[in-house]
Amino acid sequence: MPHYTVDEPIYALATPFAPSALAVIRASGDGVLSMLEPLFTGKLMKAPTNTAVHGFLVGSDGRKIDEVVIIKYGKGHGYTSEEAFEIMCHGSLPVIRAISLALESQGIREAERGEFTYRAFMHGRMDLTEAEAVEEIVKSKSESASQDALSRLSGSIRAEADSIRSSLLDILASLEVQLDYGEDEIPEEWVFPHDEVSRIISRLESIAATYDASRLYSSGASVVLAGRTNAGKSSLYNAILKENRSIVSASEGTTRDYIETECLIGDIPVHLFDTAGLRDTDESIEREGIERTRKLMEGADLIVYVLDGNEEEPSGIDSNALIVRSKRDITGASGSLSFSSVTGEGIGDVLKAIEERLLEGSSIASDVPRIDSERQRGCLLDAASALRDAENAVDSGEDVVAMYIQLALSSLSALTGAVTSDELLDRLFSSFCLGK
Amino acid sequence: MPHYTVDEPIYALATPFAPSALAVIRASGDGVLSMLEPLFTGKLMKAPTNTAVHGFLVGSDGRKIDEVVIIKYGKGHGYTSEEAFEIMCHGSLPVIRAISLALESQGIREAERGEFTYRAFMHGRMDLTEAEAVEEIVKSKSESASQDALSRLSGSIRAEADSIRSSLLDILASLEVQLDYGEDEIPEEWVFPHDEVSRIISRLESIAATYDASRLYSSGASVVLAGRTNAGKSSLYNAILKENRSIVSASEGTTRDYIETECLIGDIPVHLFDTAGLRDTDESIEREGIERTRKLMEGADLIVYVLDGNEEEPSGIDSNALIVRSKRDITGASGSLSFSSVTGEGIGDVLKAIEERLLEGSSIASDVPRIDSERQRGCLLDAASALRDAENAVDSGEDVVAMYIQLALSSLSALTGAVTSDELLDRLFSSFCLGK
Repeated sequence: MPHYTVDEPIYALATPFAPSALAVIRASGDGVLSMLEPLFTGKLMKAPTNTAVHGFLVGSDGRKIDEVVIIKYGKGHGYTSEEAFEIMCHGSLPVIRAISLALESQGIREAERGEFTYRAFMHGRMDLTEAEAVEEIVKSKSESASQDALSRLSGSIRAEADSIRSSLLDILASLEVQLDYGEDEIPEEWVFPHDEVSRIISRLESIAATYDASRLYSSGASVVLAGRTNAGKSSLYNAILKENRSIVSASEGTTRDYIETECLIGDIPVHLFDTAGLRDTDESIEREGIERTRKLMEGADLIVYVLDGNEEEPSGIDSNALIVRSKRDITGASGSLSFSSVTGEGIGDVLKAIEERLLEGSSIASDVPRIDSERQRGCLLDAASALRDAENAVDSGEDVVAMYIQLALSSLSALTGAVTSDELLDRLFSSFCLGK
Repeated sequence: MPHYTVDEPIYALATPFAPSALAVIRASGDGVLSMLEPLFTGKLMKAPTNTAVHGFLVGSDGRKIDEVVIIKYGKGHGYTSEEAFEIMCHGSLPVIRAISLALESQGIREAERGEFTYRAFMHGRMDLTEAEAVEEIVKSKSESASQDALSRLSGSIRAEADSIRSSLLDILASLEVQLDYGEDEIPEEWVFPHDEVSRIISRLESIAATYDASRLYSSGASVVLAGRTNAGKSSLYNAILKENRSIVSASEGTTRDYIETECLIGDIPVHLFDTAGLRDTDESIEREGIERTRKLMEGADLIVYVLDGNEEEPSGIDSNALIVRSKRDITGASGSLSFSSVTGEGIGDVLKAIEERLLEGSSIASDVPRIDSERQRGCLLDAASALRDAENAVDSGEDVVAMYIQLALSSLSALTGAVTSDELLDRLFSSFCLGK
């Protein structure tokens, strides 16, 4: 695990290492601009901050590397708040390699994962929830996930934490007035603010409870289409993909026992599996296939069981399975959830039902900011639990209550990173992608 | 095939569509900045050209899409010479999708491949050899290839074409003086400038001749290690990879008959194949493997035949094969080309020999600009051939000579794109990558 510093100049490729029109290499740290200057034919030092300067990059052997645009950031202006620059070069592998070598020859070292965001955090440009949101945006697969992360990046969790912290500090201040007096000279009876503390606890718990739904939108769910051979699984699979223009990737199981597609259903990234009919393969392969299908169904977030038209519901179907009927165009089975892969009727309803089943139990109020980090959920629940302890300790005296409120404040400080440990930061930022 | 225009605003993702720290979306065309303005919270319109402006992008539904930096280019300042901007956003797939939709909602359409460079060419910011160099840089695999392409992007071929064109125009002018007179009033005998024309022809042909070596550096070569089982092929393969830090990718043949690595040998991108020993597999697989190895050797640019130490050279080895001896540490065979995978001795010599053999026959003078385009080679050879025709037509009269020189000038115009056809441009630019 890397140990981060803020006193060395660093660089990293911020775009994928693959041929493309453009690549971006960013660097940050005291003095990076004057370190870059000897490598660059453009007028970098005289340019104002936040300016795009055109020119050629030159290696330490004097040979031109590439024609580039460099964006200059003076101290306090860029992502990290440090003196910084971003090189926009051609997305060419040897060019990227040559620029990396040239920067290293000037004493700029390659950054660790997450090191730019670590510095932005250390320089107070973002709190820890905002820093985590950066990586959450990059890794998001659905628009809901990226929008929620952007809201966190814009400080939605920090604002909540600040507001709750301020309420708790008020309570603590009034408590301390009590503690400053001797036992027999207390001016008036102090009353624990039960309503306010309950409100805070329930707010903390509602934010923590958004984690499951957020996970669903960011990490997605697996949905398995099951049913008898020829019941209509593959027709449903194909009809869903036809209706659904947001396919991320599709691959075929090499052993023909299932095929898989990643797509969005109601903005939830879904790994959709079609457990293919196995009758046309030889027995040993089939047995293996059935075993794999069973494991797939065990691990699924939702099983969609496809019945053949008016076929009677067989016994032994997973009670949590969503049951849908095929061949609606022939059987006219419109009462229960049914679809026709021929006319397309009912496919939208099936998708809607899948979305609802996946979201079941994870209701989210629209005025609650959402989190997508187990760490953040832990801090929020710790704070809520300390406040419950404070509520229960009213009879034990004001000093005990004050201690529990202090504990709740510590959890909030851990949430935003106001108080934290090196180990935690190293672990957290090293899970980031390169260049962030 | 697309047909390009210059009167519509266009956008494209200029970085790979994969999660990463940053992505760049560029747009170009009259009015793109005011089309972007309603989507952006930053102060775009007031900012000077070549400025990086920070703010949030907002979708047409009013929801924030991402926190971004936008680089503004006034007309005449950016890559295309048109009014343009580049959005640096988080490298998040849903963010990239949402920004694309937002730009389209403002009437900016997705660009075709190569359409930005097409516009740079149409607006006179580059000639055709410079435009081709852009794509050559992006696709280059070795530093030699990217450096050569950068030199073309900086106008090395255009400068040659201009200088030759100017010489030919001088010759043509002196010829036309002759043609203006009647046959019986010619002031003095006109002499064909044989030396100068020969010099030009040889210059054109030397530039054209760089194509093969350039191809080698840009597209690479395939090198197959062959030899008896246990002769030392795999040791040589592994020793080369150990010495060579520039491995691009490695993959193992699924059928165990060969393994392959892409690496640089003397800056030549080399697909290196180790035809693995086959003795330990069953016969039918072995037969198939031998067949595949044979095909591999037939298609190879170079076969390196590995002999076991002092083993006698067997008959039937391809006469073009490079023969190397293994186990130099034991046999002490230092006379011929030999190596030890144990001590590493001789590996450098083997690499040097491979490089020399691959470069054989493609000598390049250092003062000749190199080309990496079959189209350019064709134009250069056409011009040279027209000048040879001019040389041979001296006795047929000045008008015939003048016609051939005109023909040579046309080929030079085709080279730089001064005269060209829509079809050629459409074909040429549509082979570019997206965002260029």
